[in-house]
Amino acid sequence: MKKNKSKAQATGLLYAQSGGVTAAINSSAKGALEAAVAADRGRVLAGSNGILGVLEEELVDVRACGSRQLAQLRNLPGGAFGSCRYKLPDPHQDPRPYQRIADVFRAHQIGSFLYNGGNDSQDTTSKIAAFCKSAGVPVACVGIPKTIDNDLVRTDCCPGFGSAAKYIATSVAECALDVASMARTSTKLFVIEVMGRDAGWLTAAAGLAGEADSPIMLLLPEVPFAATKFVRAIRQRVSQHGYCIVACSEGVRNARGELLASRGGADAFAHVQLGGAGSVVAQLAKEKLGLKYHLAIADYMQRAARHLASRTDLDQAEALGKAAAQWALAGHGGVMASVRRLADSPYRWKVEAVPLASVANRVRQVPKTFISADGFSITAAARRYMQPLISGEDWPPFRAGLPVHRLPRRRLVARRLGAWKRK
Amino acid sequence: MKKNKSKAQATGLLYAQSGGVTAAINSSAKGALEAAVAADRGRVLAGSNGILGVLEEELVDVRACGSRQLAQLRNLPGGAFGSCRYKLPDPHQDPRPYQRIADVFRAHQIGSFLYNGGNDSQDTTSKIAAFCKSAGVPVACVGIPKTIDNDLVRTDCCPGFGSAAKYIATSVAECALDVASMARTSTKLFVIEVMGRDAGWLTAAAGLAGEADSPIMLLLPEVPFAATKFVRAIRQRVSQHGYCIVACSEGVRNARGELLASRGGADAFAHVQLGGAGSVVAQLAKEKLGLKYHLAIADYMQRAARHLASRTDLDQAEALGKAAAQWALAGHGGVMASVRRLADSPYRWKVEAVPLASVANRVRQVPKTFISADGFSITAAARRYMQPLISGEDWPPFRAGLPVHRLPRRRLVARRLGAWKRK
Repeated sequence: MKKNKSKAQATGLLYAQSGGVTAAINSSAKGALEAAVAADRGRVLAGSNGILGVLEEELVDVRACGSRQLAQLRNLPGGAFGSCRYKLPDPHQDPRPYQRIADVFRAHQIGSFLYNGGNDSQDTTSKIAAFCKSAGVPVACVGIPKTIDNDLVRTDCCPGFGSAAKYIATSVAECALDVASMARTSTKLFVIEVMGRDAGWLTAAAGLAGEADSPIMLLLPEVPFAATKFVRAIRQRVSQHGYCIVACSEGVRNARGELLASRGGADAFAHVQLGGAGSVVAQLAKEKLGLKYHLAIADYMQRAARHLASRTDLDQAEALGKAAAQWALAGHGGVMASVRRLADSPYRWKVEAVPLASVANRVRQVPKTFISADGFSITAAARRYMQPLISGEDWPPFRAGLPVHRLPRRRLVARRLGAWKRK
Repeated sequence: MKKNKSKAQATGLLYAQSGGVTAAINSSAKGALEAAVAADRGRVLAGSNGILGVLEEELVDVRACGSRQLAQLRNLPGGAFGSCRYKLPDPHQDPRPYQRIADVFRAHQIGSFLYNGGNDSQDTTSKIAAFCKSAGVPVACVGIPKTIDNDLVRTDCCPGFGSAAKYIATSVAECALDVASMARTSTKLFVIEVMGRDAGWLTAAAGLAGEADSPIMLLLPEVPFAATKFVRAIRQRVSQHGYCIVACSEGVRNARGELLASRGGADAFAHVQLGGAGSVVAQLAKEKLGLKYHLAIADYMQRAARHLASRTDLDQAEALGKAAAQWALAGHGGVMASVRRLADSPYRWKVEAVPLASVANRVRQVPKTFISADGFSITAAARRYMQPLISGEDWPPFRAGLPVHRLPRRRLVARRLGAWKRK
C-alpha cells in the first residue's frame, strides 16, 4: 500500500460502480458508504451511472440517503447509483478524460476513490490514480472487485459470483427434477445457457446440482467443444438416466477457438452479444439423436436474482466495500480489496489488499484440476472450492408477493465545473 | 356429485400426476395422500409416471413412504411420482386402455381415483369414470387441477400458476433494476420469453413487476401482434424511461393467427416446441430501432422454481388435493376440486366441487377487462385478481447452499395382472 505523504489528502470519498452489475454489488456499496459516513471525514459521494457521473459531475450526495436507505442497499439488485460500460482511453493517447476526472476530484475535495468493478475497471483505477498524482491531486484509489464471472486473479472469489452460482445450481437442480419426472414421455434433453464469455465458473457451478455420476453435463469455455464426443456423452447419459441436462457456457468454443454461437445454424440468428451457444448444441443433439429438447437462457436473471443470493457472497461484498473505504480514507491506495481463503470447511476467509497492477486485465479461468478428465463435469476440488461460496441464504423482505426494492435517493450535489464535452 | 350406490365402492385410492409438472403439484400430492393415509381405509397407491404407471401396473405403495416423506413433498419441485404426456384415445375408437385401467382398478381394489392435471386430464378422468362404471368397477374419479398456464375454467386459479407468476414477476422486477442501472451505456431492451401457448396469464403476471406507467411491456397471445405498433411502443418507452422490458408469451400470434415463433427469421431456428417468439420480437426491435438487446428464456425454470413458490399457491394445491381425496373416499366422483374466491383483499377462498364435464377441454384466456386499451399492460382488475395468488413466501429448507430435495421412496406393489401391451 502506498501512502500519499507529499500533499494532504482531501477528505471527500467518491464511490462508483462499473460494468455489469450483480446481485451483490449494492452490498459492497453499503459496506463502503456506511464506513465512509461513519468515518465522518468529509463529503461522501457516488457517481451517477459510474464513471460517467464523475466525468459529467453528476454526483449523488450519499448522506442525503440516510442510514436506513444505505442499510437497505443489501436487498437491492442492479446498481443502486447506476453503472456503465464506458472504456476510458489510454491516458497517453487521450489524457482528457483523466484530466477531467482529476478536475472533478479537486473541485469536490475527493481524496478517496473507490471503483467497484471487474478486471478492466481495476486497470482504470490504476491509471486514474497515476494521473491524479501527476496532476497534483493525490487520491487514494482502491478497487472493489465485482463480477459474476469470478475471473479476477488474486482473490479467492469475486462478489456476485457466489449468488449467481447459487442461482444457477439451484435452478439446474430444480429443472433436473422437472425433466426427470417427465422424461419417460417428454423432454429428454434440457439445455440451459449460462453467462461467462472467457471463464466457465458459473457453468461449473451447475455441476453442484448433482453428484459426480449425475445426468448433468457441463460445456465450459475452457474445454474445446468436440461435436462427436458431445453427442456420445449425451447418448450415454440419456441411456443411463433417461434424460440429460446440459449447462452450456455462452463462451463455448471449438478447437479452432471460434465461438459456437457464431457458427453454422446460429449465423442467421447472429446474437453474438446474447449467446446462442445453447441453441447450437441443443440443435446438434436433436439432429444427431432425435431428442426433443428444451432451452432456457438465464441471461440477466442469473445476475439480478437477489432473491436467491448467497449470504456468504453478500457478506464478502459488504466486507470488501468496508475495507476499501477504510483503507482509502487512511490514504492507502493502489490496491484492490480481495478475499483470502483460510479454510474450506468450515469456510474461513479474511479481507486483504492486493496491488491493483497485479489484478488489472488478467483473467482467471477454471483450472484443469477442477475439470473432470472427460471435460464434462467438475472434480471434488471444484466442489470444495465452490460449495462455501453459495452457502447461506439471505431472503430479502417481500411485500404483496414481491421483493421490496427501495432505490436510494439520488440527490445530486451542486456542480462546480463547466459541462464535460465528450468531443 | 354422483354417489355410487349400485355396488360397494372398493377401499383403495390411486393418485396419478398428468402433463407438465409445476412447483406446486407435489403439494397436491401431499394433501391427497396424507388425507388418504389418515382415512385408513385401504391401499394408497400412486401411479409411477402418471397414467402410464396405471396401464403398466407400476404402482407406488404410498404408505411405504412414511409420514415424513409425505410431508416433505411440499418442498419438492417436479413430479414426485413421475408424470407423463400420454393422451388416451377416444374410448369409442379404442377401448383397450380403458379396459386395462378398469382391470388394474379391480385387481388392486381401487375405488377412488385422483387425477392431477390440466384440462385434457379432466376430460380423461371423466372418460375413465364412465368406462369403469360400464365395466362394473365403480370408481369415484376426482380431478385435481394443475397448470402454470392458469387456463382451466370453473376455478379461481390453477395450482402452479401462483408460484410461476411469482417467479416471473420477481425475475422481471429484478432484471428491470439491472437494465435500468446500465441502460445509459448498455442494453436498452430486455426481452424475456414466458410460457403460455394459448393463454397469457403468466406473461400478464410480469405486469405485476411495475406500475401502470412502467417500462414493462407485455405481449399476450390474446392480443394479435402488430409490428408497427410494437416498435412504436418500444420507442416510446425507451424515450421516456431510457429502457424497455418486454415479457413475451411463447404463444404470441399475428393478426392471421400464426405463431410468431414460426415466422420469418425464426424459421432457421425452428424451435416450435421451444418458443422462439422472444427472439423474433427482439430481432425486430433491433432492426427497426437499432437497440442493443438481451434475451432470456425462462422455460422450465419458471415452473420448477419451488425456491420462490407462492405460499398461497402451495396452500391451495394442498387443500385441493386433500378435498379431492376426501370426496373420492366418500364416493363423490365426477367432480374437480376447485378454488372459489370469496374476497380479493384480504384474499379469502374456499374449495368447492365442480362437475368434471364442465371443465374438460376448455381454455380460459386472459379476459379483455384485464388488458389495457393498447394491449401492452394489465389493468387494475388484473392486479386485484393476480396479486393475492403470488402472495406469501414458503422458502424450502436449504443445506450447503442448495435446496434440500427429498424424493419419496418409490416402492412398487406386486403386480396382479399380466404385462400391458401397447399394441
